[in-house]
Amino acid sequence: MLTFAEASEIVSLAMTKGIKWLEKEPANLYEPMRYILQQGGKRLRPSLATMCASLFCDAHDETFMQRTVFPCMAVEVFHNFTLIHDDIMDHSDMRRGKPTVVKQFGENAAILSGDSMLLEAYRILALAPPACMTNLFNSFTHMALELCEGQQEDMDFETREQVTLPEYMEMIRKKTAILIGESAYIGALIGGSEYEEAKMLYDYGVELGIAFQVMDDYLDMYGDEKTFGKKIGGDVREGKQTFLFLRALEILGKSREGHTLHRWLKAQGLDEQEKLTAIRSIYDRINITKLVEEEMDLHYQKALQKVKTLQKGRKWTDEQVKPLLELATTMATRKK
Amino acid sequence: MLTFAEASEIVSLAMTKGIKWLEKEPANLYEPMRYILQQGGKRLRPSLATMCASLFCDAHDETFMQRTVFPCMAVEVFHNFTLIHDDIMDHSDMRRGKPTVVKQFGENAAILSGDSMLLEAYRILALAPPACMTNLFNSFTHMALELCEGQQEDMDFETREQVTLPEYMEMIRKKTAILIGESAYIGALIGGSEYEEAKMLYDYGVELGIAFQVMDDYLDMYGDEKTFGKKIGGDVREGKQTFLFLRALEILGKSREGHTLHRWLKAQGLDEQEKLTAIRSIYDRINITKLVEEEMDLHYQKALQKVKTLQKGRKWTDEQVKPLLELATTMATRKK
Repeated sequence: MLTFAEASEIVSLAMTKGIKWLEKEPANLYEPMRYILQQGGKRLRPSLATMCASLFCDAHDETFMQRTVFPCMAVEVFHNFTLIHDDIMDHSDMRRGKPTVVKQFGENAAILSGDSMLLEAYRILALAPPACMTNLFNSFTHMALELCEGQQEDMDFETREQVTLPEYMEMIRKKTAILIGESAYIGALIGGSEYEEAKMLYDYGVELGIAFQVMDDYLDMYGDEKTFGKKIGGDVREGKQTFLFLRALEILGKSREGHTLHRWLKAQGLDEQEKLTAIRSIYDRINITKLVEEEMDLHYQKALQKVKTLQKGRKWTDEQVKPLLELATTMATRKK
Repeated sequence: MLTFAEASEIVSLAMTKGIKWLEKEPANLYEPMRYILQQGGKRLRPSLATMCASLFCDAHDETFMQRTVFPCMAVEVFHNFTLIHDDIMDHSDMRRGKPTVVKQFGENAAILSGDSMLLEAYRILALAPPACMTNLFNSFTHMALELCEGQQEDMDFETREQVTLPEYMEMIRKKTAILIGESAYIGALIGGSEYEEAKMLYDYGVELGIAFQVMDDYLDMYGDEKTFGKKIGGDVREGKQTFLFLRALEILGKSREGHTLHRWLKAQGLDEQEKLTAIRSIYDRINITKLVEEEMDLHYQKALQKVKTLQKGRKWTDEQVKPLLELATTMATRKK
């Protein structure tokens, strides 16, 4: 199978071709789409899809790009649709170091070109082999609806006094993890896997996605601003109940320190640095770093387990699925 | 085949069931969807789809509701998605005599529940028989993308000094007519038609859709406020270049009166009633009513022609396709 780096290179090529295809009229509709797609980003989702596809078909076949990689791009186009609309809802001005679509082109353009990108994702998905079309469309639609639910829950949580850790984990599963799972899933199916195999890779992707988001929460507090790419402490400034906060509350229970932590996060009009320092010192005392590592390891192990089961059915060696194991290690130990 | 009234009754029933299905969590996501779907409206699109389906299958079969009517509802759910997002972009407060979704629930809810409705439309479409799924998904996606292009063109035209009549007709084809065509198309396919037959019904629907929009432009100027449901003269107030305006310009050419008409429409800060009266008197002088009737008749005749060709292939009598002929007459002579 392709390594992540190899898949990523093919995806870059496909993306360049795809962006050219979007040089269409009316320009005001298609320019914002090209703008956001050109910005790059990690291309994690389509690369994972392409990797998984290559497990089940010949990546060196001349039809691989057309038949396999192009439909896999649907997850990237869809992901960027969610970014465009999220940035309107969050009033975000900057993303990946550039003005967001809403900032650059205005709100109407952001709404309509976002809608069109969601539709483009479906158009691209339809390039897949007809045999798996119904399955692809159904699972993709189901994932997309769940993702909207996750986004709504995330917004609802902002105004809720208390969120539980299981509720939070369920929200990030929907909002972040299932799209990564779906990427692996559609890749496998497009490549020619059995349904059960695609499902195992879906679960593998979901576990990695959860680990990824937990690390994202951690880095928002403990990351290096330069490699993380965002200002540290954003979640605390916004009073967001994250994995760190909810796991800490779980440990501290109804103790005095638990109340203190809750009060600090919800406090308004305080000096930001003071707030950040206070919360961080509580996190340090209970060794949140270790708790985060434990949580990530849990999902890492679950992800590996899925790969093991997949291997068993096909009698594949570790060597044959090495890129899946490597990606799991990278994502579950990510430090930026 | 079912008459429009019969189809419409079945659609009402299906809609009631469908709305119940949307009683889900998170409430903030699903309540706006139920809110707009409950408001009713004419249900033109799913009724047309159901009518067309009934041409090719037994509407009295017990599986008709589940297998046929439910997937036909996709066009209504999609239509309401476009209304939700259009109302954000147009800053509209009222629709069908009630606050719009954006007014009632706020902008974020309108963006996200609109996105989810688009996805719900796909979910519902996937209830169709698997044999026609790829065709349905492809044509639906293609239509939806074209509709977004039409919406963008409509917004672009607002700031353009001069639009031509062919450009305008192409815009309303995309923005309004193709969804009506697609409704007939998916209905036929879901009912079990051949592809060519569905395509004829698509063309039939598109012609009716264009006639419908031309009449809408006419009623905006000459309608009865009570039956039209909107304040008369809205297009003139917004300086919109409509069929009336562009057809009049075509007649008047570069004459003095042509310039006068153009100046009146683009004039700012004038007394609205004076502007309306001035433009109307030009329209009256060139007998715009007759020009509108001629245009509508053109599309009416084209629509009938499509039905004739359809009949021929199946050796159907006029009686067997009567509801299609009746609907064409109703839509092409609509006065409200």
